[in-house]
Amino acid sequence: MHGDDTALVLGLDVGGTSSRALVSDLTGRVLGTGEAAGGNPNSHPAPDAVAQMAGAAREALGGHDPSAVRGCVLGMAGVSKMADPAFGEFFRSEWARLGLGCETTPVSDGVVAFAAGTPEPRGTVLIAGTGAVAERVEDHRTAATIGGWGWLLGDEGSAYWLGREAVRATLRALERGAPVEGLVEAVCDHLGVAPERKAVIVAANASKPIHLAELAPLVTGAEDDAAEDIVHRAAVLLADTAATARPDQHSPVVLAGGLLHPDNRIGQALRAELEARSWPEPRTAGPGAAAAAWLAALPLTQDPNSLHKTLLP
Amino acid sequence: MHGDDTALVLGLDVGGTSSRALVSDLTGRVLGTGEAAGGNPNSHPAPDAVAQMAGAAREALGGHDPSAVRGCVLGMAGVSKMADPAFGEFFRSEWARLGLGCETTPVSDGVVAFAAGTPEPRGTVLIAGTGAVAERVEDHRTAATIGGWGWLLGDEGSAYWLGREAVRATLRALERGAPVEGLVEAVCDHLGVAPERKAVIVAANASKPIHLAELAPLVTGAEDDAAEDIVHRAAVLLADTAATARPDQHSPVVLAGGLLHPDNRIGQALRAELEARSWPEPRTAGPGAAAAAWLAALPLTQDPNSLHKTLLP
Repeated sequence: MHGDDTALVLGLDVGGTSSRALVSDLTGRVLGTGEAAGGNPNSHPAPDAVAQMAGAAREALGGHDPSAVRGCVLGMAGVSKMADPAFGEFFRSEWARLGLGCETTPVSDGVVAFAAGTPEPRGTVLIAGTGAVAERVEDHRTAATIGGWGWLLGDEGSAYWLGREAVRATLRALERGAPVEGLVEAVCDHLGVAPERKAVIVAANASKPIHLAELAPLVTGAEDDAAEDIVHRAAVLLADTAATARPDQHSPVVLAGGLLHPDNRIGQALRAELEARSWPEPRTAGPGAAAAAWLAALPLTQDPNSLHKTLLP
Repeated sequence: MHGDDTALVLGLDVGGTSSRALVSDLTGRVLGTGEAAGGNPNSHPAPDAVAQMAGAAREALGGHDPSAVRGCVLGMAGVSKMADPAFGEFFRSEWARLGLGCETTPVSDGVVAFAAGTPEPRGTVLIAGTGAVAERVEDHRTAATIGGWGWLLGDEGSAYWLGREAVRATLRALERGAPVEGLVEAVCDHLGVAPERKAVIVAANASKPIHLAELAPLVTGAEDDAAEDIVHRAAVLLADTAATARPDQHSPVVLAGGLLHPDNRIGQALRAELEARSWPEPRTAGPGAAAAAWLAALPLTQDPNSLHKTLLP
């Protein structure tokens, strides 16, 4: 297949809030991109999830011949859902209508995020947004998943955890009779309640637990000791999660997800924590759809590093 | 009213799973007891809750004249519900049909549990069962409530927390590839799944979060390091909660709730933790209905200490 200069690759990065697709040729020239609503089959009904993925793919393909697509990688959180027979059948039937010239390889969002930070086949990726999870990547595949237990059991250092800790710090302050200012004041304002223990508990329990993630910006935005303490603990917990996933001390570490962006206070605190632990400087993940397309091109290209530089500059 | 040897008192201890009532005279002679299903208005619809409370009271009164009841105390968790106008109206209308010869004083379950351990007016009570909460008691009333934030935000050291920590320890062990034995094996068996990360996460999330409390006996029953670590951390967290509530170093400390029974491993670990912190030996709460009856008799008796000894030997 090498040297087939008409071959195309299709990459998909499917999340809970958006589905993105990218089509390129083997020189790394981007021929189209597509975007649709969230397509994660764990947070959307199967017909909707598959429709969103396919919609993003069709938009990226544009007028190009789908049978020219020789490699397709679909990355998403909860990729094990693809092994569910009912979902798999639904996916294959809808996907067949795309008319791609190849099979589609499902991989975890961690594998895509890792490739979005480095062309290396092996290392560690840490993703933190609403949730938090790390993966040990070996040969561009998931070798181990650490954390990612969800809000009930884990997600330490995630936006959910930050919001929950903000409410907990507020309750502790109110029980102590501490002054209502900084983070405590921000949490009570956000919840729309007077600074009173029972009112805060009732308000925090009034909507779905995962909505506590909406309070995370109060932590990264406040500058008092309570917020500082939560930020520091988040960085330590996230570094611990990454450390458990890490295959060795020399392979690269990739950080992904909104919370770990270099502009985010958690991303900054985590980088400082990793530096204090003498880790090499972590890489920041670029766009997932481009990384998925790069993974799709891997078996078809003789120069994966150059292609990586072109697709993920 | 002193010296009225026909006066009766009625005490009620209303919980989520049972409602108990006790009628005595002012010498501490028990004239009747009653029991009904749970009557906590936060976990049962108002008509059911009030019907259970009233049923227990009627059974305790038996053939005695309700108008002879000169003191009535009703203790329950979530007593603030009594201030809810809709619930309050419903309660008063049903309660009036009992024909008591006095008003009914609602108090927290903490105040009743404290009185069930000591006749002192001031001190600390720590209650741990499915949840965990401490109260600072002053003059037989709640002066401060510490913890009791519920499963989403807190309940550290409670049965819920023990169960959640058991699942977390299991996930950590599975991620590390540790041998499947002891607590890890017990948790997987209880959840009915193979010892596999994803299966454990899915099973633990399959029912209501509070059901994690059902895994607590696995922790107190196991004898490996993982269980030992959870038991120790529970004791430290519970002692911290009690310490925050404590008015001073000399007033009594009362322990209540199934988890803190001297036969329970958590109760034992907590007593050891308090001893290590040089606290005086804590007292163990006796039956709540008898304590509520004693509180009801307080304004009517000249010898509360003797009455306490009789009602709560």
